[in-house]
Amino acid sequence: MKIVIGIDLGGTEIKFGKFNQNLDLLSKLSIKTNTTNNGISIINDIIHTIKKIIENDELLGIGIGVPGPVDNDIVLGAQNLGWKETNLKKILEEEFNGVKCKILNDANSACLGEMVKGSAMEFGTFIFVTLGTGIGGGIVINHKLISGNNGSAGEIGHLKVESGDKRLCTCGLYDCVEQYSSATGILKTAKEMIKKDSMLYNFDNLTCKDVFDCAKANDKISLDVINDATKHLAIALSYVADILNPEAFIIGGGVSKAGSFLLERIENNFSKLAFPHVRNVKFKLATLGNDAGIYGSAYFALEEIK
Amino acid sequence: MKIVIGIDLGGTEIKFGKFNQNLDLLSKLSIKTNTTNNGISIINDIIHTIKKIIENDELLGIGIGVPGPVDNDIVLGAQNLGWKETNLKKILEEEFNGVKCKILNDANSACLGEMVKGSAMEFGTFIFVTLGTGIGGGIVINHKLISGNNGSAGEIGHLKVESGDKRLCTCGLYDCVEQYSSATGILKTAKEMIKKDSMLYNFDNLTCKDVFDCAKANDKISLDVINDATKHLAIALSYVADILNPEAFIIGGGVSKAGSFLLERIENNFSKLAFPHVRNVKFKLATLGNDAGIYGSAYFALEEIK
Repeated sequence: MKIVIGIDLGGTEIKFGKFNQNLDLLSKLSIKTNTTNNGISIINDIIHTIKKIIENDELLGIGIGVPGPVDNDIVLGAQNLGWKETNLKKILEEEFNGVKCKILNDANSACLGEMVKGSAMEFGTFIFVTLGTGIGGGIVINHKLISGNNGSAGEIGHLKVESGDKRLCTCGLYDCVEQYSSATGILKTAKEMIKKDSMLYNFDNLTCKDVFDCAKANDKISLDVINDATKHLAIALSYVADILNPEAFIIGGGVSKAGSFLLERIENNFSKLAFPHVRNVKFKLATLGNDAGIYGSAYFALEEIK
Repeated sequence: MKIVIGIDLGGTEIKFGKFNQNLDLLSKLSIKTNTTNNGISIINDIIHTIKKIIENDELLGIGIGVPGPVDNDIVLGAQNLGWKETNLKKILEEEFNGVKCKILNDANSACLGEMVKGSAMEFGTFIFVTLGTGIGGGIVINHKLISGNNGSAGEIGHLKVESGDKRLCTCGLYDCVEQYSSATGILKTAKEMIKKDSMLYNFDNLTCKDVFDCAKANDKISLDVINDATKHLAIALSYVADILNPEAFIIGGGVSKAGSFLLERIENNFSKLAFPHVRNVKFKLATLGNDAGIYGSAYFALEEIK
């Protein structure tokens, strides 16, 4: 059978999906990411696993989502893997002679996954937002992923949502939305707002999920923390809506497991903050979860083959 | 000869350009905009003028840029003209049987003008920013104008650039960049900052041009005002760059007559505020001035005919 392999290369594990030409998922597996020695063995691990997956099938293409900026199939760097600039495409195309290989950023591959098989299927123009340790994004306009001049479009985690240089971001700038509305940002706010009479006071190792759980249990401080996070996110999304007037925002990533409790609060804040002409946006939760990346990267490779 | 007419419908005057199929401008003229009685005579004035312009030529298409939001060729409203929702396309296509008519927002038509004949010719992905009484924008990605879900993409004048609800905007929200960096916004800041020892103190009817002239003459307060305006604009453009990673910003509109003095200050502020990966953006002044609109709307009609 003619197959395509979609890969989601993360800092902890590497997921592989085997697809037919209709993008039906035939099988999947995952391996641990070996980040020792600046991730030097990762490429060999990928090659080895691909060979195992192929079996007697004919491999047409490989798509890989990587955790870092990508410009024209070149990985510009991936801190979580220990990688500097890497031409993964060239290495794989030499190894698998005649097979097309496409590389993209992991937020973008998850975005494409939701577009072709997830909750964005009904939209031509939408924004995918991934809320995890950080905040990433993908932009689709008229069914096409927008990559920008050097592959950095969709970096919505670095939109500035406060003035006054309150929180320093890892990018060197202040008050990026990632510092307020990611899992990390929510914990920062919780630690700032925590008081003895809050349920949050009882945790030794507070997690973002704890904050949501306490908020759902009506803990006042926890509700304030979540409202702060969703308000700041809504400010960032109001910028995006103002500029692109999309049909929908698709909210994914680990934090989105908080579900409609989260979604309603984002939407409610957004409706007060966005420019009136662009308020009619739909908010939806991503539905593919951890499989979004393998679907999206396989689709990206399939499109290239066609 | 086969011709196309590009029209720039403004609140003060209506400009008409006669073009051949290669988008060479053959002639142009303008008439006053009659906004009495909610602009009821404007459409007849346009029809009358088009008939005069055609002479013995064969009219293929008409493009019109209007000062308001447009969705799928329907004018949703135009405050400066006194118009509510208007199907200008239908009226003109019935009047000029068989002639294609295309309607777009005026910031978008100026944007397209700069794309095909102005300073954006070398770019595939750029943002056009018009700094006038308000602030408007146009977004081009891979040589295509982005209109959004209901024609409201590119409303960059309403990006929020301060927190604290300092200045109320005409849109009902607070602290839109238009309130800081348009001609109106610059005057607001000047009036807040003015002191007896500033050159600005001597003007009876201070204009935005006066502020720039005094700043160019090294008046300290005026320089502070311009720095405030360009810093706020740079914040808004940093959002746009962060989301779209464009090749260039093209700065047009009346305020852009301040030239490189303005451009350098926007660029300087931007380089400190934008996310590192998207900083390599070019800043250019628009070059078509008042003709951008007629070029862009003629081009928009020509594209439809092809």
